[in-house]
Amino acid sequence: MNDRALLTVISGFAGSGKGSAMKGLLEKYPDTYALSVSATTRAPRPGEVDGREYFFLSDEAFEEKIRAGELLEHAGYVGHYYGTPRAYVEENLAKGKDVLLEIEIQGALQIKKKFPSACLLFLTPPNADELKRRLIGRGTEDEETVKKRLSRAAEEADGMEQYDYLVVNDNLEDCVETIHRIIQSEKNKVSRCLDEIQSIREGVHAFS
Amino acid sequence: MNDRALLTVISGFAGSGKGSAMKGLLEKYPDTYALSVSATTRAPRPGEVDGREYFFLSDEAFEEKIRAGELLEHAGYVGHYYGTPRAYVEENLAKGKDVLLEIEIQGALQIKKKFPSACLLFLTPPNADELKRRLIGRGTEDEETVKKRLSRAAEEADGMEQYDYLVVNDNLEDCVETIHRIIQSEKNKVSRCLDEIQSIREGVHAFS
Repeated sequence: MNDRALLTVISGFAGSGKGSAMKGLLEKYPDTYALSVSATTRAPRPGEVDGREYFFLSDEAFEEKIRAGELLEHAGYVGHYYGTPRAYVEENLAKGKDVLLEIEIQGALQIKKKFPSACLLFLTPPNADELKRRLIGRGTEDEETVKKRLSRAAEEADGMEQYDYLVVNDNLEDCVETIHRIIQSEKNKVSRCLDEIQSIREGVHAFS
Repeated sequence: MNDRALLTVISGFAGSGKGSAMKGLLEKYPDTYALSVSATTRAPRPGEVDGREYFFLSDEAFEEKIRAGELLEHAGYVGHYYGTPRAYVEENLAKGKDVLLEIEIQGALQIKKKFPSACLLFLTPPNADELKRRLIGRGTEDEETVKKRLSRAAEEADGMEQYDYLVVNDNLEDCVETIHRIIQSEKNKVSRCLDEIQSIREGVHAFS
């Protein structure tokens, strides 16, 4: 309906396939979406490139960005900082792009406070057994990290109702389409179309 | 997300193309949707068939249905009664069909009261000039009817904010897809997925 760009936050359990879903959306609808790249203080994993997966920062550099107000939100997860650089989001919304933020629950709720019109999606595997398999099954991390991840999943599970939409990632292609459908349908919400309604209303009253 | 059937009310200005949009939805997604057939006391137009476009009833028969509680909602429009037979809606929802009600604003708000989970869509032509053309341009009705229709349009314009979604019918095919997208996305609303959330949460807490 309206052509205003939408800010969408996508969270989900570790292993819910958020990253693949974002990649799918950008590949299928490159003119519609822009994905915000987060800043983090965790070390790059093999194959990760600075400025593509994350901006990899030292603790000092990250804290300086917090002080300078250059992050829209930030949070700690498994001993590291994660945050969203403000400039990229604001520039892309101004260009009319629907901006995607892939962040965890603490950050998501900070965004909702600052941008009440943001749309919050939560991704989940189809059931708890599959979730457990994905949380512990990556096999590349130590016991302590897995333990932290499980406890974070419990925290996230408690926060699911604070999101607007729940999306099950059972099949990646369906999941990408569902997310696209949800974000574009949000634009038809009456609460997002008040200018259009006002304009039609004035026209109708002028000729009735 | 969840597989519960949804009750959707579609209203819109006379000439907004509600009828064609419903027909398009049923043709494209026959297994998904069921269209409720309204009862009315207005006379059939040429080509209209009893039980297809409407159940055509006498004033007495309509009033008997009101008394017997067989209508989910009813309202008067341009001197005639219009109403929604209860049985068809309840049977189709029970079968898992997403039920579509094409009714005007008074009836829509009655439905929202009885079914708070119903989704309310309002269809509009792209702008007020086009709306005026469609309201007065059918050319088959007398001046009095057109005048009533214009005044009803003014009343409807004042009620647009009470709907959940606004859909512009500029191109029929796009309009059908937009309505389908909106209805199916509604099922991912967190408020409609509380059972699924509870089940995932219990699972996560069991293994963390």
